[in-house]
Amino acid sequence: MASRTAHEPAALRSPARIPLRPAAETDPPAGVRAGRIPLFSPTPHVPQGYSPKAFVGEVVPFGVVAFREGHDRIGVHVRLVDPAGTESLHRLTPLADGTDRWRTEIALDAAGDWRYRFEGFADDFATWSHAAQVKAEVGVDIAVMSALGASLLSAAAGEKDRPAAERTLLRTAARRLREADAETLSAVSTDAALAAAFADRPRASLGSVTDWLTLTVERKRAGVGSWYEFFPRSEGAVRRRDGTVRSGTFRTAIKRIPGVAGMGFDVLYLVPVHPIGQTNRKGRNNTLVTEPGDPGSPYAIGSPDGGHDALHPELGTEKDFRALLRAAQKHGLEVALDLALQASPDHPWVSEHPEWFTTLPDGTIAFAENPPKKYQDIYPLNFDNDPAGIYAEMLRIVMHWVGLGVKIFRVDNPHTKPLQFWEWLIAQVRSAEPDVVFLAEAFTRPAVMRALAAVGFQQSYSYFTWRNTKAELEEFLTSVSHETSDYMRPNLFVNTHDILTEYLQFGGRAAYRIRACIAATAAPVWGVYAGYELIENVARPGSEENIDNEKYEFKFRDWEGAEERGESLAPLLRRLNEIRRSHPALTQLRNIAFHWSDDDSVLVYSKHLDGAFTGTGRSDTVIVVANLDPHSVRETTVHLDTRIWGIQPGDGFEVEDLITGSIWTWSDHNYVRLDAFAEPVHILRVKERS
Amino acid sequence: MASRTAHEPAALRSPARIPLRPAAETDPPAGVRAGRIPLFSPTPHVPQGYSPKAFVGEVVPFGVVAFREGHDRIGVHVRLVDPAGTESLHRLTPLADGTDRWRTEIALDAAGDWRYRFEGFADDFATWSHAAQVKAEVGVDIAVMSALGASLLSAAAGEKDRPAAERTLLRTAARRLREADAETLSAVSTDAALAAAFADRPRASLGSVTDWLTLTVERKRAGVGSWYEFFPRSEGAVRRRDGTVRSGTFRTAIKRIPGVAGMGFDVLYLVPVHPIGQTNRKGRNNTLVTEPGDPGSPYAIGSPDGGHDALHPELGTEKDFRALLRAAQKHGLEVALDLALQASPDHPWVSEHPEWFTTLPDGTIAFAENPPKKYQDIYPLNFDNDPAGIYAEMLRIVMHWVGLGVKIFRVDNPHTKPLQFWEWLIAQVRSAEPDVVFLAEAFTRPAVMRALAAVGFQQSYSYFTWRNTKAELEEFLTSVSHETSDYMRPNLFVNTHDILTEYLQFGGRAAYRIRACIAATAAPVWGVYAGYELIENVARPGSEENIDNEKYEFKFRDWEGAEERGESLAPLLRRLNEIRRSHPALTQLRNIAFHWSDDDSVLVYSKHLDGAFTGTGRSDTVIVVANLDPHSVRETTVHLDTRIWGIQPGDGFEVEDLITGSIWTWSDHNYVRLDAFAEPVHILRVKERS
Repeated sequence: MASRTAHEPAALRSPARIPLRPAAETDPPAGVRAGRIPLFSPTPHVPQGYSPKAFVGEVVPFGVVAFREGHDRIGVHVRLVDPAGTESLHRLTPLADGTDRWRTEIALDAAGDWRYRFEGFADDFATWSHAAQVKAEVGVDIAVMSALGASLLSAAAGEKDRPAAERTLLRTAARRLREADAETLSAVSTDAALAAAFADRPRASLGSVTDWLTLTVERKRAGVGSWYEFFPRSEGAVRRRDGTVRSGTFRTAIKRIPGVAGMGFDVLYLVPVHPIGQTNRKGRNNTLVTEPGDPGSPYAIGSPDGGHDALHPELGTEKDFRALLRAAQKHGLEVALDLALQASPDHPWVSEHPEWFTTLPDGTIAFAENPPKKYQDIYPLNFDNDPAGIYAEMLRIVMHWVGLGVKIFRVDNPHTKPLQFWEWLIAQVRSAEPDVVFLAEAFTRPAVMRALAAVGFQQSYSYFTWRNTKAELEEFLTSVSHETSDYMRPNLFVNTHDILTEYLQFGGRAAYRIRACIAATAAPVWGVYAGYELIENVARPGSEENIDNEKYEFKFRDWEGAEERGESLAPLLRRLNEIRRSHPALTQLRNIAFHWSDDDSVLVYSKHLDGAFTGTGRSDTVIVVANLDPHSVRETTVHLDTRIWGIQPGDGFEVEDLITGSIWTWSDHNYVRLDAFAEPVHILRVKERS
Repeated sequence: MASRTAHEPAALRSPARIPLRPAAETDPPAGVRAGRIPLFSPTPHVPQGYSPKAFVGEVVPFGVVAFREGHDRIGVHVRLVDPAGTESLHRLTPLADGTDRWRTEIALDAAGDWRYRFEGFADDFATWSHAAQVKAEVGVDIAVMSALGASLLSAAAGEKDRPAAERTLLRTAARRLREADAETLSAVSTDAALAAAFADRPRASLGSVTDWLTLTVERKRAGVGSWYEFFPRSEGAVRRRDGTVRSGTFRTAIKRIPGVAGMGFDVLYLVPVHPIGQTNRKGRNNTLVTEPGDPGSPYAIGSPDGGHDALHPELGTEKDFRALLRAAQKHGLEVALDLALQASPDHPWVSEHPEWFTTLPDGTIAFAENPPKKYQDIYPLNFDNDPAGIYAEMLRIVMHWVGLGVKIFRVDNPHTKPLQFWEWLIAQVRSAEPDVVFLAEAFTRPAVMRALAAVGFQQSYSYFTWRNTKAELEEFLTSVSHETSDYMRPNLFVNTHDILTEYLQFGGRAAYRIRACIAATAAPVWGVYAGYELIENVARPGSEENIDNEKYEFKFRDWEGAEERGESLAPLLRRLNEIRRSHPALTQLRNIAFHWSDDDSVLVYSKHLDGAFTGTGRSDTVIVVANLDPHSVRETTVHLDTRIWGIQPGDGFEVEDLITGSIWTWSDHNYVRLDAFAEPVHILRVKERS
């Protein structure tokens, strides 16, 4: 197979499934590691030493550095064994960028542990064909090259596992070479049918193999999803005449489910639903003084009503909770619970297992703190006093909810618990129930966030909310899509109950539109915290969170009224989730490519998926052009590398704006005008030529 | 230990050798890889999976990513076991750049295999001290923090292996804390003597360790050296009256040794000294027609006089060769031989082992070729027909010369032989004679060059000759010094008998001066091919090699005359090698730092070595400022990060120009004027303040 440029999309298209033949393993001499065909730096790869991961349907690049001495040609395969034990063989192509890296892309279609190894070999036909073409052209060694070719083709014709027609083709070609003239040599060595026969079944010698490696494929929801976060107590909460509030319940929250499902979300994430402590309960806006009726932070878990395996009595009973799970399921929503492993001073653990906390010299239990800050409504667990006891209890709690049908957990602050605890817990849960998904809420240093992903978290909150300029977004999205995607999957939440960035505070409605469009299209998992659609953008002064944070009080929102008045972003969110559903290119993490625009505020990227992977045979390409300046109109030119979707520079193609329905003819250089106050973002699909 | 910035040189200075105590190994729970204190991505590290290497006296950075959950402090050690089995423990400091990477530098002082592992621990004193300081300041938890401190200090005072004075200090401090007031808490928690006691012997808990890793330390000459290449047959060659030439011999070549030694070189590299084939012998300028008396390429090895274990009769006998080895040794020069594993058609192998070559269908042996180019004076070996036989013969040949006292081999085109052959050969030779050094002459793709270094080559030719602009040199030197230096050591040859770059062809005398100054100071190994000092800069038209290439003819050079006439660069080369000898900073590869200059043609770098590593206790700093434009005068300002050598920005310091002897007072911003036609390069030493 000829080498291809990195840009040539065919190199990454339809991986050839080559008939299996045993690898010709030439063991290296004793004490030597390098194979006869050296194979180094296989990918996917996790730098921390864990197994890489993918999700069902993910198109995964497999690559390895391979070369041999001198000028002879080589070939490289990856041999895959799926979880059911079925083997397949896939040909790699060289990137031809001077790195000696070979690559192919394969869609993994079953959950479980896959094994893979790379196999390098001397490609005897390619070596002969190249030399024969060059020599035929200059008229040297015609007889010798013809004889070598005839011998090679005859040997291939004798391979019993080749189709009969192919064997005839090879035999005929071998006979022709007996003429030993330059024209025949040139014709045979450039014959496309022969090349195809050897592409399918190379004439391989000097085989080398890497070790077997493992890749864990998780269910699709581990890698693709639209999340919606809400506080069930706010949904259906009623302010009484006397100013007090009657909490919403699981039953009243159910009424919001059609609205969320109607916007196209598929994961409904509930903040903790457990009893809330009374001791040192926080008041509104995180104050230390509680007013009567203040519901307290749901993260101060535990009261005489129970702990992490209990439900807050004001929300309802287990029966009510099951009803919510059923209602969600009926609407195509999966419920995610919050896993916040900490206790209020009133948690049953405190009396039953004081050894799970840190007792100070004065006999009191230590509050959570970041000196000199203190969190008096929360006791952190001390994992070192009784690891076995704590580990077992945490597993029991998770499996309790799994038993009720919850398969997704948003984990609060995992970086404040030992890393090895998560590695253990996730492995234990996986062995019992492989479909459970954990989302790490660790807003901390890159090494820690990456390690949490490496040891098992299926998804991770990310720095996305703080990446707002073009340079920031290009760097961030490149990193998550191309550097850490073998083990880390960002969930691009646009806001959370704790995060309201300056960009959203001061960017108005346009900022909310822009961020949603990017989050929904740049990565296959994104999320929204309730209220985003109402553009709730007032912060507690000096902070990066909403004023009157819902953690400490009930919120009353008029979803329908806002939509009727045309104030809600719900129609946009609905459209974005529709676009995601109908464009498989948007369900991939690793396929983003950035393009140039002449304006530093205009971000341009595309996501392309080859027809081999879309399920329809037709490729899918989405181009996003976003004006990141929420305060102005931008006019500029965008410059596209259209070769990514198979269009030669200069050729025209039709694009359809998936938000407005407009249709344009584009080429590699295009004028755009994006008005922050009208439509700040183009989301374009490339229409396939018929 | 407080965190330091990456720029603070103290962080990389004198690694504390901490008294050994057993690592508190807390095994991770079953099935879990992460330790209680996670430790990831240890360095030195070789991406291809081989052991890293260093040379005796090399200052090696050891690093690891380490962190723990939450806010408590940790410490990290590296435990080293030298080849004699002696253990030592060294404290790492955090880089404090947000990467969670910890680092220290250690000079390795013995050849052989060293083992190392990293040990992370909870640093209980640092955790307490930080919290106590913060809380004392705001006046909270004084009693509790005092009690915790007293308990920690008392426990430390009870450690039997602490010096008595330290135990008293700790006991006294513990007693003071019983007062439990904010002032005392503040005083004790910030006490420098206490901090020092715990820096030496931390109060460690929750220990974790990495696996043991291996690093191979090779003799100093593997990493430090000044090479001089020559053709012994040219040294003492005499043109007779009739125009024919009487070849130089080992005996006449000996006469050139004092001259080479006088320039300060320490490795004398001889091109192949074996019998040269007659069949298809190449004529002058690589022509296919030989004139009578043409000596042939020494790379066409083998004749009826013998092969790779024989000496060319015109050069002399084994006795003469031994005399040359002795003469070189007497002058402080070590001889390096060329290892070119290929045969002329007249090589004894051809008749004795035709199976070591490729026989074509017409019964002839295949010449070396890169279709359609052919090299008719050379048969390449085919390593796949009889690997065991070829491997054994190559080892026999190397050990033959090792037996005669040759310990350095320059390997011709190793990338045209199987990688696994070199891994095997170098390991075999090393086990018999660990001091043998192999230099890889592989001018090919980066992955191949790096793999050759990874499998064992001690030194590598590099892209240096083709890196001439400031951007190119900064990128190249950064890569070889900081990216691949755990396994690859570049030998910065300024020219070879095959390489005369355009920069040298057209840059005149200045170009020769500039390139020598950079090669001699930017890396600890550099090299010169004879004739460089005479500025032999005429190329065969259209090529990048000298016209009348010495490979195919004798050269007659008037070394002394050129020097007497002031035309020779010998005095500069002599001075450069003197500077290298008196500046230990120049014998390190990994210590280069680049500085800014306002002129794109002015390259600025420094090499700094801390006093802990110089042997004198005084640090050594060399600053090189090079005008890379060989055709003009450049005046500009250079901007130095003086913190690297411990001088605060804005402070003045004296520098001495080691070429001219000039002395200036410099600071972080300095005017320079570099005249290509006078002195195009400053090589400055920073004078230590007394």
